[in-house]
Amino acid sequence: MTTTVIVGGVAGGMSTATRLRRRDEKMEIIVVEASGYVSFANCGLPYYLGDVIEDRDELLLQSPESLKARFNLDVRVNTRASDIDRAAQTIALTNTLTGERVTQAYDHLVLSPGAAPVTPNIPGIEKAHTLRTVEDVDRITAALAGMETAALIGGGFIGLELAENLAHRGIDVTVLEFSEQIMAPLDPEMAIYVQRHLENNGVTVLTGADTVNITDKQVELRDGRVIPADLVVAAIGVRPASELAAEAGLEVGERGGIVVDDAQRTSDPAIFALGDAAEKRDAVSGDATLVPLAQTANRHGRLIADVITGRKTTSQKTLGTAIVGVFGLQAASVGWSEKRARAAERDIRVIHLHPQDHAGYYPGSSQIHLKLVVDAADDAILGAQVVGEAGADKRIDVIATAMRGGLTASDLADLELAYAPQFGSAKDPVNMAGFIADNLANGEKTAQYHEVEQAVADGWTLVDVRSEGEFARGTIPGAVNIPVDDLHGRMDELADQKVLAFCRVGQRGHVAVSLLENSGVEAANLDGGYLTWSAVNIH
Amino acid sequence: MTTTVIVGGVAGGMSTATRLRRRDEKMEIIVVEASGYVSFANCGLPYYLGDVIEDRDELLLQSPESLKARFNLDVRVNTRASDIDRAAQTIALTNTLTGERVTQAYDHLVLSPGAAPVTPNIPGIEKAHTLRTVEDVDRITAALAGMETAALIGGGFIGLELAENLAHRGIDVTVLEFSEQIMAPLDPEMAIYVQRHLENNGVTVLTGADTVNITDKQVELRDGRVIPADLVVAAIGVRPASELAAEAGLEVGERGGIVVDDAQRTSDPAIFALGDAAEKRDAVSGDATLVPLAQTANRHGRLIADVITGRKTTSQKTLGTAIVGVFGLQAASVGWSEKRARAAERDIRVIHLHPQDHAGYYPGSSQIHLKLVVDAADDAILGAQVVGEAGADKRIDVIATAMRGGLTASDLADLELAYAPQFGSAKDPVNMAGFIADNLANGEKTAQYHEVEQAVADGWTLVDVRSEGEFARGTIPGAVNIPVDDLHGRMDELADQKVLAFCRVGQRGHVAVSLLENSGVEAANLDGGYLTWSAVNIH
Repeated sequence: MTTTVIVGGVAGGMSTATRLRRRDEKMEIIVVEASGYVSFANCGLPYYLGDVIEDRDELLLQSPESLKARFNLDVRVNTRASDIDRAAQTIALTNTLTGERVTQAYDHLVLSPGAAPVTPNIPGIEKAHTLRTVEDVDRITAALAGMETAALIGGGFIGLELAENLAHRGIDVTVLEFSEQIMAPLDPEMAIYVQRHLENNGVTVLTGADTVNITDKQVELRDGRVIPADLVVAAIGVRPASELAAEAGLEVGERGGIVVDDAQRTSDPAIFALGDAAEKRDAVSGDATLVPLAQTANRHGRLIADVITGRKTTSQKTLGTAIVGVFGLQAASVGWSEKRARAAERDIRVIHLHPQDHAGYYPGSSQIHLKLVVDAADDAILGAQVVGEAGADKRIDVIATAMRGGLTASDLADLELAYAPQFGSAKDPVNMAGFIADNLANGEKTAQYHEVEQAVADGWTLVDVRSEGEFARGTIPGAVNIPVDDLHGRMDELADQKVLAFCRVGQRGHVAVSLLENSGVEAANLDGGYLTWSAVNIH
Repeated sequence: MTTTVIVGGVAGGMSTATRLRRRDEKMEIIVVEASGYVSFANCGLPYYLGDVIEDRDELLLQSPESLKARFNLDVRVNTRASDIDRAAQTIALTNTLTGERVTQAYDHLVLSPGAAPVTPNIPGIEKAHTLRTVEDVDRITAALAGMETAALIGGGFIGLELAENLAHRGIDVTVLEFSEQIMAPLDPEMAIYVQRHLENNGVTVLTGADTVNITDKQVELRDGRVIPADLVVAAIGVRPASELAAEAGLEVGERGGIVVDDAQRTSDPAIFALGDAAEKRDAVSGDATLVPLAQTANRHGRLIADVITGRKTTSQKTLGTAIVGVFGLQAASVGWSEKRARAAERDIRVIHLHPQDHAGYYPGSSQIHLKLVVDAADDAILGAQVVGEAGADKRIDVIATAMRGGLTASDLADLELAYAPQFGSAKDPVNMAGFIADNLANGEKTAQYHEVEQAVADGWTLVDVRSEGEFARGTIPGAVNIPVDDLHGRMDELADQKVLAFCRVGQRGHVAVSLLENSGVEAANLDGGYLTWSAVNIH
């Protein structure tokens, strides 16, 4: 009989344990968890705070008792792991309530300790809560009574979910984001939709907000602003909990993640690692990356159990697909953003579109903002971002699947997606993205919203091809108005000019550019149209 | 200057025309449409009948005038095409209102006339309506006043959409389906969920219903039953409108579709065909097939325009992805059903699962019924079916994309799908299907619901591994109850037996089978559990 010790009893650790038991009836399987709970719904914690999940028991998916009965697992909560002796293959396990310490031998050791919240070096930071465990949520819940204001340091996924949920509790919430945009995985012109939506729902969002002091009832920013805050939560991000691994001399990467091979083995072949504590390999670049997502942890847990029980299998590179919902708006991303691709100096094509989530003639449709980042060399999909009230989740999942399947951006045109007017369009938003990618791959020229100013300076004529009414309600400074349907008759006005055309979303602009180019006028279309330009430029 | 004549002005024809214009500013483009309307929302017609789409103008996406202004198209409605002279490259165009007939020369001819409703040879069938055009919907709307009962002949997509919409109008609806199940693209144990849902919403569904006579106020069935029907609509299906092509001597396939190559060219290289009138190539078998879907028509329209204007491109084989929504239930399918695969004598593996559409701990989740048909030889996904109140559209789109990308069924385990508790699970239903596929590919044995009786006859012991309470509320006849958590202690009861285990959905059954097999007991899991078995066997 062999023994496997698993450090960490949430997503990755528990997936390893249960799969191990299904593969091996005899193995001794010990799971140790530092907190008091295993297999809890960590992604549900903000929603319990917001009373969306009303029953605390809903968060507790399994208990040591239920796991013993079903899977014959030896699950030990409130137990800290330390002092791995790799030569002897032992690990020390200490009960944090009783202080009792045992030295446990293992044949295989699996490290799934997760990540720890990053706590910035700010005076008073000890007053700030973090949200990672059931104990954390209990502490915040206990503190909430009578609180009227909250400051959330960090405008990432957890920060935004907290903002929504605290607002649900009637608390006046301010999100403090150090950088110039919230939601780092998105590009700024996409993140702005989320910020506006938060603001429309009563949440104050401050970007470029550098917190310098936290006192009992307020947070002070470097620029002198003072934010009232009965409650402060730091949600800046997480760092891999790799201390145990590092102390044992296991290889740890630059960004603190435990280094593993494609069988999730650490530099010690008897020790595996997974989840938020371990490095992943990025699907776009192949480089090491940190992606703290439950799906990957679960998947790798199953994989490790298979490897330990003798099945050859290898892990996939990670796309980092993620989504957040705030006040009914969905924001999702997969792969690389434009800024990440540009930082890596990739030659890219960028596509913005703003279709309806389902056929406009069927009631209740809402607008989707979809962005695609494409490798200019081979039309590969590098990443996508989708924001909308409905159907963003579906489109990001479809694109993530296309990326996994190695489809090109133009191939998206050919996807056969289920269409009835409640669910999509005969040309689905993802198909439309593919059509545009195909046009670009075949030489159609577009300009990005941030290139307009330079284009005008370079002598391009900015032509608003929307209707006169739309033009009158607001346009890009310097634009002349020639509605697309008038373009045939007014072509002579544009002879010998270079035309940067735009409409509301890009479709009429595409028609105009086709007409102009086919008539011998050099023309480019403003990608994403006035909507994308104004998202950034109209406040 | 060249001339292209396009016969048919809805999805495929109009996509061809507008793309042609974007590619060629000079070409003469003539679109002729037999009905009075072009570019109308044919998938919206049932919803206009049901007052879900309230404004008739919403159905009319474009007009000849708007298409002239935007794309300089010569669009002629109420115009019948006939008498193609392939040698002379001319076609006769007759205005059906004035009788005026012209002979029009073409360089390229594009046939996109669509399909015609199948009208069965039943006495009184001339009293039945069909639903295909705006004129059809106007006729039914005009007839509806005072009507209290309706019989819909045909339980396919259009029939079910009509059932919902007529019920919305307060009409007592009976669906008459000739075969033993509604929704032919689904297998019977999946279609039954849709049938029950219709029945729960007040629609009468009669399968095995052979209509033999239609009179003014009723429909008579072969078995003698008489169905009251102020309104009768025949929605049995469609046949390709390929007469014009056939008369011109173009090759037409066995099932009536115009034969085309992968550039959508007919047997005459100057003539193209697409849409419901043309054959497609099936993605699973490569054989000719008929798939009357708007998405494919639009895609092929673009492709034909590209080919005519000199760009080399080829069409993809079709997966036939489709979805219908009825009374809030979604039913979707892609690729082949089990019955189709078995009819083709493919060696397959079949997977049923019943996960929640999003994390159960987050409010509002609902159950999804997901079926996967897998090639036993190479783990290829042959098809999928998904039925549920939410998220069926997303899962079928993901699987359709995986099929297009050539992913195997086991690869579905590795898809990184966007997870937050409102939108999915850390193990998404599609991932779960992949896990099960991976288990089956690695030798785990399952039995299908229709194999239980034979298995028991062959000496397998049927073990219900659910709780005693679940067992008491109903089980499969002959089953003994050993709850999965008791199995360790009661293993000796099963020594030397072959065990067919089952639980509610298949998960506990999987744990039980793992335990039994690892303990040396031959065991198989009932795929889809008691839920799939009872869908068919409990009425």
